[in-house]
Amino acid sequence: MRYELYYHAANQGRGEFIRLPLEDAGADYVDVARETGSGLGAEAMLRFMKDVGIEHPPFAPPFLKAGKLVIGQTANILLYLGPKLGLEPKAEAGRLWAHQLQLTVSDLLQEIQGTHHPVAHGLYYDDQKPEALVYTKHFLAERLPKFLGYFERVLGGAKGGHMLGRSLSYVDFTMFQLLEGLRFSFPRTMRRVEAGYPGLVVLHERIAARPRIAAYLKSPRRIPFNDRGIFRHYPELEEQG
Amino acid sequence: MRYELYYHAANQGRGEFIRLPLEDAGADYVDVARETGSGLGAEAMLRFMKDVGIEHPPFAPPFLKAGKLVIGQTANILLYLGPKLGLEPKAEAGRLWAHQLQLTVSDLLQEIQGTHHPVAHGLYYDDQKPEALVYTKHFLAERLPKFLGYFERVLGGAKGGHMLGRSLSYVDFTMFQLLEGLRFSFPRTMRRVEAGYPGLVVLHERIAARPRIAAYLKSPRRIPFNDRGIFRHYPELEEQG
Repeated sequence: MRYELYYHAANQGRGEFIRLPLEDAGADYVDVARETGSGLGAEAMLRFMKDVGIEHPPFAPPFLKAGKLVIGQTANILLYLGPKLGLEPKAEAGRLWAHQLQLTVSDLLQEIQGTHHPVAHGLYYDDQKPEALVYTKHFLAERLPKFLGYFERVLGGAKGGHMLGRSLSYVDFTMFQLLEGLRFSFPRTMRRVEAGYPGLVVLHERIAARPRIAAYLKSPRRIPFNDRGIFRHYPELEEQG
Repeated sequence: MRYELYYHAANQGRGEFIRLPLEDAGADYVDVARETGSGLGAEAMLRFMKDVGIEHPPFAPPFLKAGKLVIGQTANILLYLGPKLGLEPKAEAGRLWAHQLQLTVSDLLQEIQGTHHPVAHGLYYDDQKPEALVYTKHFLAERLPKFLGYFERVLGGAKGGHMLGRSLSYVDFTMFQLLEGLRFSFPRTMRRVEAGYPGLVVLHERIAARPRIAAYLKSPRRIPFNDRGIFRHYPELEEQG
């Protein structure tokens, strides 16, 4: 089956959490908004979202078309793809646990979004910079250590294997991407605190070294980090105190 | 099976989205932090969260114990409970769709939390009131209509039956609670805009009239809304312009 991924063409954003496991599995997928041709491109995505005939309309990208299914919400897409890509345990307890971790990352991503958009989605960063400074100070001091400490605890430290234990799952790609994004957004902070999360650092290296991921990261399919999307680098946000 | 729900005793919060379907189904459950006795009470919850021996530790309440399973994240708990309580379609497409809607509500709940806590989880509302005023103004003008319009569209207007169509699901209880909370938090706004969402209003009434829900709402088990948790009423937040 050829999967159709719908996400903004201009940034990694939440779409990247879907792309990485698809890439690692060598799955057949098309990144609809980034391609040109009939039924492709950013307009195809917008047209789809405005189509009142869709039975299960997504609230926002990313969403995935898999045959007749249309699935929205990043964690829900991974819940669907997990067993298809062999990136999820078979038992109910393991599936729920993987999904629970993914949802905890979803919460963190929404908080990371707040570092540059604390008061309004619809305003530019420059229009909410004072609030962003206050928000980010608290985020880096209180929230980020709480989340990273939790994930490190789950992983079991540097001797831990994967987020779920012995076997690889989509949550490992999620943790890789989380570290990638945090290093881009908050390089000073991450250099200072990373030694406290040795398991996450090792996991990140191990994922980056997987042949298909290494090839993907070097390819033009990997959109560079930029000043759009969730992960943004505004140096002033971490240069306080 | 007796379910054990772990959530803060002092407010409805996210725990209420689990309580409502449990109540409607007449399920056997204990609200651990609100009971007294051996292994019960708020301390039992804290002790559980600090226990390093837990295989699948939750990041935060609510979490549910079901036999040997420990499940965290509100939407994940409902994903697990759905089929057990008969509040979910059996086919994969329907299950994913119900969960997708629940996750969209999760996103909205995090945005609602932002109306009184825009810059820091760890500060009091009074310490972030100026930011809360700006945030709430944008939230009520731009975000709330987008979410409610989406849910109304999914429901299919006043002639729509349930969120998933013909059959009742946990998403219907979620929409009931969402309207309850919004009416408490933003009464002026909701009075003004509700006519635009006739389907949601009818659905709310229908859920409130279900015998077990009606009995629950009148019982001491239903914690009154207060100034803790997600839904809070600070009149100044909607009295702008």
